[in-house]
Amino acid sequence: MAEPLARRLLAEGLGTALLLATVVGSGIMAERLAGGNVAIALLGNTIPTGAILVVIILIFGPVSGAHFNPAVSAAAALRGELAWPHAVLYALVQIAAAIIGTWAAHLMFDLPLLQISTTERGGPGQLLSEAIATFGLMLTIFGCVARASAATPFAVGLYITAAYWFTASTSFANPAVTIARALTDTFSGIMPANAPAFIAAQIAGMGAALAVARFLWPRAPRD
Amino acid sequence: MAEPLARRLLAEGLGTALLLATVVGSGIMAERLAGGNVAIALLGNTIPTGAILVVIILIFGPVSGAHFNPAVSAAAALRGELAWPHAVLYALVQIAAAIIGTWAAHLMFDLPLLQISTTERGGPGQLLSEAIATFGLMLTIFGCVARASAATPFAVGLYITAAYWFTASTSFANPAVTIARALTDTFSGIMPANAPAFIAAQIAGMGAALAVARFLWPRAPRD
Amino acid sequence: MAEPLARRLLAEGLGTALLLATVVGSGIMAERLAGGNVAIALLGNTIPTGAILVVIILIFGPVSGAHFNPAVSAAAALRGELAWPHAVLYALVQIAAAIIGTWAAHLMFDLPLLQISTTERGGPGQLLSEAIATFGLMLTIFGCVARASAATPFAVGLYITAAYWFTASTSFANPAVTIARALTDTFSGIMPANAPAFIAAQIAGMGAALAVARFLWPRAPRD
Amino acid sequence: MAEPLARRLLAEGLGTALLLATVVGSGIMAERLAGGNVAIALLGNTIPTGAILVVIILIFGPVSGAHFNPAVSAAAALRGELAWPHAVLYALVQIAAAIIGTWAAHLMFDLPLLQISTTERGGPGQLLSEAIATFGLMLTIFGCVARASAATPFAVGLYITAAYWFTASTSFANPAVTIARALTDTFSGIMPANAPAFIAAQIAGMGAALAVARFLWPRAPRD
Repeated sequence: MAEPLARRLLAEGLGTALLLATVVGSGIMAERLAGGNVAIALLGNTIPTGAILVVIILIFGPVSGAHFNPAVSAAAALRGELAWPHAVLYALVQIAAAIIGTWAAHLMFDLPLLQISTTERGGPGQLLSEAIATFGLMLTIFGCVARASAATPFAVGLYITAAYWFTASTSFANPAVTIARALTDTFSGIMPANAPAFIAAQIAGMGAALAVARFLWPRAPRD
Repeated sequence: MAEPLARRLLAEGLGTALLLATVVGSGIMAERLAGGNVAIALLGNTIPTGAILVVIILIFGPVSGAHFNPAVSAAAALRGELAWPHAVLYALVQIAAAIIGTWAAHLMFDLPLLQISTTERGGPGQLLSEAIATFGLMLTIFGCVARASAATPFAVGLYITAAYWFTASTSFANPAVTIARALTDTFSGIMPANAPAFIAAQIAGMGAALAVARFLWPRAPRD
Repeated sequence: MAEPLARRLLAEGLGTALLLATVVGSGIMAERLAGGNVAIALLGNTIPTGAILVVIILIFGPVSGAHFNPAVSAAAALRGELAWPHAVLYALVQIAAAIIGTWAAHLMFDLPLLQISTTERGGPGQLLSEAIATFGLMLTIFGCVARASAATPFAVGLYITAAYWFTASTSFANPAVTIARALTDTFSGIMPANAPAFIAAQIAGMGAALAVARFLWPRAPRD
Repeated sequence: MAEPLARRLLAEGLGTALLLATVVGSGIMAERLAGGNVAIALLGNTIPTGAILVVIILIFGPVSGAHFNPAVSAAAALRGELAWPHAVLYALVQIAAAIIGTWAAHLMFDLPLLQISTTERGGPGQLLSEAIATFGLMLTIFGCVARASAATPFAVGLYITAAYWFTASTSFANPAVTIARALTDTFSGIMPANAPAFIAAQIAGMGAALAVARFLWPRAPRD
């Protein structure tokens, strides 16, 4: 990780903005076109999201590590792979870029820039979903990093493809994504009041994954 | 395979639980959203299942071999690649974890934990389907292991993607999966009374694949 | 290609049978479930077909070259990579196995074994489609073999995924597949009377690809 | 890039023609079959387009660099990787081949050869969409070329898969594609009067990506 910090932050920002532009934009497109069939809309939201994750991890991974997710950056700091001040900067850039990506989707679809979601998401099932979704995402990352890093971009894209469907929350699994999706009143939105519990559940899932990964893949330095 | 047994069993358990959470959870999500179009529901069940298989084989393969399937563990024992007592432990962990994954899906979707499937699946076509599905799955694994192991996770995920559609049973191809799916009265369920015949057909398909693989890929040690 | 002939023929047979079981079986499943929406049915036919192609080329490629297609075997003979008597044996096994795979699909879906398709397919657009589809398939194979053979299974699977949709014939591109699909009166069938023109168009497309490939990828020995 | 120019131009022409045959042909097929559900039609247009991109970049990349896009060829010239006269020839061949591919789709589907699109596409959202789509496409290419070129074909195919859905314009991101799609009055068409603004937006996106790429991936010679 010899890249200068500014370059790493730019990579984190561009990747996270592209991710949110895809999550929010494809949600808008899919809902508009799906004629009320929500399963078709979710397919049109899932496939682009999984696809763009592969792309942004492939191209930005060698620059910044391709976190795009404060939970991933925090885990990297907890594992001693990223200095804490850098992890904080990563997270701030991720959150700002996630919001910019959401706004870019609004502009592309000729919608008002500033929105607040009115979509209620919550309850024990959805919070458990977020914990499990983030637990699985972190295991995917830790497991790939430990032994098979060439496939990491595909693993993460495929994991999120699955998690959109196997969780009741459609798997946010990312605090920056959660915050940004509170700022869109479209298919992928979440009411701001529901966001803190989602983020808490994500952090719990991340913590559990850290412990399990330490046992499953010991002495696995991040390369 | 120098990993300690506890670590291998944990990997088998986590992978099988994630697999069943995906099979059952995406089935619930897909059926809820598909508005009665079963082909769309099956797409929403197939794509996540194929995707999660790639992920769990990628990350747990180097730890435990990524069987997640008593038929695979039994075949490994029959080929002399896994000690029989270990194969039995693998199978017990797989069955327990499959049930836990099914229950996790129930909890995520706010459904009753304990369920018994009322979905009838059977008849000569479906039993032939299970035999052929398992035969093809085992050939996929044996063939990849023999020569091209780097692509194994993708091959297995793609094989199951195909088998969900080309068989009349939607391809269970796994005794642990069959048992766990008897415990969910949702899209992916199977009546307990139908499970033994499915498992018998799976074992027959596995046996046929063992013989064919011995001829097609001789001297192929599992690495 | 030091594999004994019997092993190669078995690999060709198993692969072609699995291919047809998938083409025909997923067509039956997709049409049954799609509720009359033919685009959804075609998606349910396309995705499994592309997926199984990746699998069978991955696992049988190192054994037999993974032709599964008399046009591919004939091209290999014309390029001096396969002895003509072997190419004839390949083609005979492919045709027989394609029929067996079709029958397996009928049995799995509890349909009459022996059927004759009544689906009319023809006209200048569809024949041009078959010529272009086969031309593109052969270029895909020749191009991958020339320089990037590790990706061949994925390239062929993705090519057929595309060709199912960009051709008016849904891209048979394979004489053995065409013959076998004349023997199923389901989604993927073709009236026997229409088959010869399809096969002639496929051969024309193969011939054109041979000439183009010789110019694009000179001195490219099949490995 | 020691290939003779004629071979490179043939590769660019064949690839671009196949790309447009797929974009236009799958659009026709998807719209015909989708029964009025535009999201399903767009899925049937997206999946084949992403798939064929992987194939044509895999097989023609080693011959010509697999541009298939005047914006890519111009960027290569601006980066000093392609002589300007060659870039002009590339672009002319790409445009001609894109039109031929469009006509091939018309012939395959028994439609009139010569058409002019009447589909209006425009407005600030769609122009911003084209700029962002092309910006992301160029970053995908530059990023892959800089460090991870083996995955380039998959990255580009997946990027366009995502961009079809996250942009309001369905992501043309290619001047040759834009011109050719003005010549089809089918699902994928664009009114000729709307094409110049699309192309201008694409060039703006390409220019922005050039600057960003220079900062993110310095000293990255195209190999």
